[in-house]
Amino acid sequence: MKLEYYGYLAAFLTTSSFLPQVLHALRTRDLSSISLSMYLMFVSGVALWLAYGILLGAGPLIASNAMTLLLSSIILGLKLREEIRRRAGSAPSKRRS
Amino acid sequence: MKLEYYGYLAAFLTTSSFLPQVLHALRTRDLSSISLSMYLMFVSGVALWLAYGILLGAGPLIASNAMTLLLSSIILGLKLREEIRRRAGSAPSKRRS
Repeated sequence: MKLEYYGYLAAFLTTSSFLPQVLHALRTRDLSSISLSMYLMFVSGVALWLAYGILLGAGPLIASNAMTLLLSSIILGLKLREEIRRRAGSAPSKRRS
Repeated sequence: MKLEYYGYLAAFLTTSSFLPQVLHALRTRDLSSISLSMYLMFVSGVALWLAYGILLGAGPLIASNAMTLLLSSIILGLKLREEIRRRAGSAPSKRRS
């Protein structure tokens, strides 16, 4: 299998894997067991991977990280909203993530 | 900043981001809002990224994906265990992920 295809297949899997998490979060509105710290760090890291991919001109890195950044930012946004509501006392009380 | 450092910094962020999620899952034992489909796809994709990195001989890819594979597999294992218990009727009933 051509080397490049490993990259594109890996990119497809790790990128599209965030889609079920986005759908699950939108459907259940429950992000209580998702770690806010994880997504703050993850989104920053993916943005850097995107910069790295652009500087390298590496297709799989650019394609996967642009999509992953979009999807993981949605989860981060939903989690931040839940956290803000929780602190404002309106969301059901769950342990801090 | 040397190009390589972008990769290593990105690798550090996206890799270590899974640590708070592992700790959160171990502390709360609650993975209900984590999507099983996400982690099945994500772990497979990361394994492929690792293969891609080894074939390329790219340091940042190898280092980050080996660690990410380890951490995300722990989350996958905890989630699978929760799912098995839920189906066996012993875990608190939560919507399917």
